[in-house]
Amino acid sequence: MLYEINEKIIRLEREGREIIKFNLGDPDQQTPVEIIEAAFEAMKKGKTKYASAAGEARLREALAEIHGVNADNIVITPGSKWAVFAAMYLLLNKGDNVVIPSPHWTAYDLVAKSLGVNVKLIKTRFESNWEVDVEDLKGLINGRTRLIILNNPNNPTSKVMNEKVVEKIVNVANERGIKVLSDEVYADISFVKTKSLIEYEGEHIVVRSFSKTFAMTGWRIGYAITDKALADKIIKLNQITFTNVPVFIQEAALKALELRHQIVKAMRECYQKRADLANKILSDTKLKFTKPEAPFYVFPKSNGLNSEMFALRLLDKGVAVVPGTSFGDYIEHFRISLTAPDNEIELGLKVIAEAFK
Amino acid sequence: MLYEINEKIIRLEREGREIIKFNLGDPDQQTPVEIIEAAFEAMKKGKTKYASAAGEARLREALAEIHGVNADNIVITPGSKWAVFAAMYLLLNKGDNVVIPSPHWTAYDLVAKSLGVNVKLIKTRFESNWEVDVEDLKGLINGRTRLIILNNPNNPTSKVMNEKVVEKIVNVANERGIKVLSDEVYADISFVKTKSLIEYEGEHIVVRSFSKTFAMTGWRIGYAITDKALADKIIKLNQITFTNVPVFIQEAALKALELRHQIVKAMRECYQKRADLANKILSDTKLKFTKPEAPFYVFPKSNGLNSEMFALRLLDKGVAVVPGTSFGDYIEHFRISLTAPDNEIELGLKVIAEAFK
Repeated sequence: MLYEINEKIIRLEREGREIIKFNLGDPDQQTPVEIIEAAFEAMKKGKTKYASAAGEARLREALAEIHGVNADNIVITPGSKWAVFAAMYLLLNKGDNVVIPSPHWTAYDLVAKSLGVNVKLIKTRFESNWEVDVEDLKGLINGRTRLIILNNPNNPTSKVMNEKVVEKIVNVANERGIKVLSDEVYADISFVKTKSLIEYEGEHIVVRSFSKTFAMTGWRIGYAITDKALADKIIKLNQITFTNVPVFIQEAALKALELRHQIVKAMRECYQKRADLANKILSDTKLKFTKPEAPFYVFPKSNGLNSEMFALRLLDKGVAVVPGTSFGDYIEHFRISLTAPDNEIELGLKVIAEAFK
Repeated sequence: MLYEINEKIIRLEREGREIIKFNLGDPDQQTPVEIIEAAFEAMKKGKTKYASAAGEARLREALAEIHGVNADNIVITPGSKWAVFAAMYLLLNKGDNVVIPSPHWTAYDLVAKSLGVNVKLIKTRFESNWEVDVEDLKGLINGRTRLIILNNPNNPTSKVMNEKVVEKIVNVANERGIKVLSDEVYADISFVKTKSLIEYEGEHIVVRSFSKTFAMTGWRIGYAITDKALADKIIKLNQITFTNVPVFIQEAALKALELRHQIVKAMRECYQKRADLANKILSDTKLKFTKPEAPFYVFPKSNGLNSEMFALRLLDKGVAVVPGTSFGDYIEHFRISLTAPDNEIELGLKVIAEAFK
């Protein structure tokens, strides 16, 4: 379905139509110039050689300090997606199960499929404030369950998980010897305080990224935080796959960390403003949605909607969204990504609102 | 063993000793400044976003033209190593076999081990000019053989394969429905003409890189050339693992291609000079070796040598080499990598020669 929508976008743009793209998880902002310059300086200094598959010591130490762990617990990866893949590749065997609350990012499914692993989805609902029912979770766990994947804050709902629910999930996992992977790539710029999985009991995996926080999506740099044993396995996998994230990119990431207070503040404010605007405009419609607690998404529902057909029709009005079916069994929902330039956001939201007056 | 050697290098350097490093496959040269500037320009132009998992169309087209294939047959990867991993991941199931002429790059072994795949080595010998015996190959193939990996020119021997032997291997593979992966990362700067596997019959895989040719090891960019069906599978794997090679790195690679005639000429001349010097100095010793036909390595043999003990002892004289056991069953051999700065090459070679007078 996404393919059909993307093809239609390409066709319309070729015809000269301007499309407001609420379909991408890629910020419209440019990478801050100081970060770009740090990469250039590093290249000129010859930081263009093979390097550690774990990541540069200085970057690992800086991240360790931020997260209150040891540098040994940090592995630098080409995007958080690699950290997810690596953990799944290393922890799961063909025929094993992974349990994932839905709606969920499609990449988890695709990795599982590639590894021959079964995905058991815990359906969460707008009507229950997207909360995970821990009894549902328990019912899905069996002898071949090796991993639970949480995405907190969540794509596509922009909902931050209830800490008590996370604690219960972690307890279930700890009791049964199952690892939890918490994908927290939206946490740094969340509108509300989030508690990282690092702060809970047990040896689990946290996945973070520079992509969303610093508008560095295409730089491909993220990291895993985990126990030393799994960290070492990921490092060994890095050695036999991509070797290392370019050192000049790691130097750019170090510069990003140095400037993080100002960049994060600006980024969060920008997305909070957009989310407030979306709240305001969409509240005046028949759409039902939970208020975003983090960037970038709103995931509204309209009873009886066929969001696949809706997404195609909406394109004719110049706005691209993603149907809810791309995130699980959510045909009545669609995802709006507030990553278009500011001047397009209001316009695009009004076109959507018009359809649900 | 490599670990022991690397630890000893670190210890000696901490003590203030200077070590001539003939143990690395990483050129001493810096990435040409025009390439660095192309990356910087691209970053400033905002080429820092998510992009195609196949690679940028312009780069794929430029490479397709160079190799006489279609852009559809090219997939850009984070180093040639990823292309090797991806092909092995996609073609091999647990319990399958891969056949590899030895001496060989250890990464092939490690990937196979990670995938639960059995490696069958074809032993080649200095005494037979490192040629692959096709009868040996046939004897190793069984019903679970899915892949043959060639490394041409070879690391560590710097030997270019005899074209007739390659043709025979390809014929065997084609008859039995086995794919051949040809790792050709040293081909562009080879001293003698090499014939790429692309030019043979059948649907196989060629793996190339910008690393050695343009002194871009740490940039992590290479590519696979293969049939569209496998290319599409690699692209899908890229999508769920690292997403894309940063576009600014691909722009740097495009600049490298633009300047390739002059860069390749200079690079080849530099390594030819070093290889000639190594020939000259080592010919005056008891060491036996085939004349390098490509960068960067010499793989000499001394009858009865324990190269692991030798490599450790040589370190005390300030020179690092890799014992032959790192490339298979070659205890009497060691690998000299002519990637140290020019002023260290003669000095280091003389220290080695002294040991075999």
